[in-house]
Amino acid sequence: MTANELTIVKSTNLKPKPEKDQIPFGSTFTDHMFVMDYAEDKGWHEPRIVPYEPVTLDPAAMIFHYGQTVFEGLKAYRADGDRILMFRPEKNLERLNRSSDRLSIPPIDEDEVMNHLEELIRIEKDWVPATDGTSLYIRPFIIATDPNLAVAPSKTYKFMIILSPVGSYFSGGIHPVKIKVENEFTRAVKGGTGMAKTAGNYSSAYQAQSNAYKEGSADVLWLDGIEKRYIEEVGSMNIFFKINGEVVTPALSGSILKGITRMSILELLRDWDVPVVERKISIDELYEAYERGEVEEAFGTGTAAVISPVGELNWQGKKMTINNHEIGELSQKLYDTITGIQRGNVEDPYDWVVEVK
Amino acid sequence: MTANELTIVKSTNLKPKPEKDQIPFGSTFTDHMFVMDYAEDKGWHEPRIVPYEPVTLDPAAMIFHYGQTVFEGLKAYRADGDRILMFRPEKNLERLNRSSDRLSIPPIDEDEVMNHLEELIRIEKDWVPATDGTSLYIRPFIIATDPNLAVAPSKTYKFMIILSPVGSYFSGGIHPVKIKVENEFTRAVKGGTGMAKTAGNYSSAYQAQSNAYKEGSADVLWLDGIEKRYIEEVGSMNIFFKINGEVVTPALSGSILKGITRMSILELLRDWDVPVVERKISIDELYEAYERGEVEEAFGTGTAAVISPVGELNWQGKKMTINNHEIGELSQKLYDTITGIQRGNVEDPYDWVVEVK
Ligand SMILES: Cc1ncc(COP(=O)(O)O)c(C=O)c1O
Ligand SMILES: Cc1ncc(COP(=O)(O)O)c(C=O)c1O
Repeated sequence: MTANELTIVKSTNLKPKPEKDQIPFGSTFTDHMFVMDYAEDKGWHEPRIVPYEPVTLDPAAMIFHYGQTVFEGLKAYRADGDRILMFRPEKNLERLNRSSDRLSIPPIDEDEVMNHLEELIRIEKDWVPATDGTSLYIRPFIIATDPNLAVAPSKTYKFMIILSPVGSYFSGGIHPVKIKVENEFTRAVKGGTGMAKTAGNYSSAYQAQSNAYKEGSADVLWLDGIEKRYIEEVGSMNIFFKINGEVVTPALSGSILKGITRMSILELLRDWDVPVVERKISIDELYEAYERGEVEEAFGTGTAAVISPVGELNWQGKKMTINNHEIGELSQKLYDTITGIQRGNVEDPYDWVVEVK
Repeated sequence: MTANELTIVKSTNLKPKPEKDQIPFGSTFTDHMFVMDYAEDKGWHEPRIVPYEPVTLDPAAMIFHYGQTVFEGLKAYRADGDRILMFRPEKNLERLNRSSDRLSIPPIDEDEVMNHLEELIRIEKDWVPATDGTSLYIRPFIIATDPNLAVAPSKTYKFMIILSPVGSYFSGGIHPVKIKVENEFTRAVKGGTGMAKTAGNYSSAYQAQSNAYKEGSADVLWLDGIEKRYIEEVGSMNIFFKINGEVVTPALSGSILKGITRMSILELLRDWDVPVVERKISIDELYEAYERGEVEEAFGTGTAAVISPVGELNWQGKKMTINNHEIGELSQKLYDTITGIQRGNVEDPYDWVVEVK
């Protein structure tokens, strides 16, 4: 057996699965997890599937002090005939390595980890829920583990994958949400970590989000950190607008996460011959188009909700009501197509879906 | 006994203390640590001093995923007659609470924690090294512990204080370093977390710092994230320039950490009637002053090195050699005064020093 051969220790004490449709997001975990360690002399080693259990770390472990960490989020779906499907998982592992590069974390072998992930899903397949809209959320992450307070990259890391069955993001199908355009706080800026999926990007948004909730909004729309004019993205979603027949999404500026849902939507729209462009778009331009009655649809895109229609944007007290708070035709079609492909109900000409056999 | 009464469990297995002058930074820890937990219904509770031991957390603990965490760094010094002194520790606890506010973490009771900290130092007093330049580094930190992948503030936290004896920052006294002016990467931006001492700010700097090392520099000087013109700070230090007789330090912009050494230097200089100003200063302005021969001294300031003279600044290939790579008179005087106060050798008219009795 080589150091890189997967070992498996099965749990002898399986947990009850949650009731259908009573699955809160991200607080129930399956019986097993994947773990692998990194050391300078060994590289990534000892990949293993073990019972889900606590992590034990020195209080000086670098993750607690300097935030050297990256993560991913993807899903496994149960299709007809009880097949288990993942949606473009290789893109998540690719992005994990891009995030790691930004955070000075050594890269993983994407093919090897893909095999380990498939094995983990196979073992946990009974945890993949079946009801429409439900799925098994997959959270790979890497943490710096050196017990050392020097401000420098860690020499040891832990890579883990944990799994959590999740209910439907929207009960009763998708429905449009209110979003606040954020003017005070900044999520990310050119030269920062905005394009990486790293912990610090998320907690730094809590204050802005909590202010938005108090004002009745579901999340914030971030503007660029430099001019506070150009639209970037929503909390955990990229953003699209349909303006006068053309779909516009902010170009990847270096401070926006390159969403896999975003990427898939761009491919679908091009395939459907719907005019679509990635470019800088300012909040002023959007507001002017709105005043001319040209903003036809707006929607966020991400793994969690797939498509989240925006019914209202609130920009410093100026309200933009979009499509009369209703789901747009294109939003619905994109939602149906992508969720259809994810669940194996719609043909997948793009080879997006990976079946766990 | 109330829930907020300190309990103490002594270690029965004391570790050997490190040899004098052989103390690497931040990798040796003392026998005990302070721990306290937070829950919504109990507030901060169960303060305790326990043997230094690993932390056990659910793999879904929020600290691993969304970076909700803050920390501090201060020191205890051994003075003549074996007194143990701390330097303005109340300022660190104040700043911890400011950082927590930015990260949506509940505040601690500063007075209570000060008492617990003093008790911890009393128990570990034999760990405070005596040699000149050495000290006991104190690292308070708070981590979010909810096992939940929802992107939202945690409902539970752990506050810990760990202690690490540290050697002299500069072997053989202070000496000037080379610093690279960073043009590509950004540390922080208005509306972000730059004014908070939170983990993500530090690992996001590793790439820039590693590039700087390759070019022979000891650290980077960050420019503002918006115009990439205004000087902000160095890795873990604020920055001061003496230009044509006047001391200039960047004004607190919202993206700079409010250093306690910085604060103390401003007070000293005002007291000494040395002209000093906190204002925006651009790298162009500095370079022009340099070309006129007016940049007399430059130094970084922080708990680690107190004063770190800058001998050379490298800005896109343009080199500024400062004070002929020698320690400036004012830099030396500030260093001697502050370290003198910290070690009880210089009178402390400001009541900066707190003795642990
Ligand atoms: C900041 C941010 N933007 C956008 C997205 C959407 O990306 P994806 O479509 O890959 O889920 C996410 C979620 O992963 C995110 O965290
Ligand atoms: C980013 C940053 N700037 C400046 C400082 C200097 O602050 P202080 O003088 O309080 O140590 C530190 C260190 O705490 C720091 O981390």
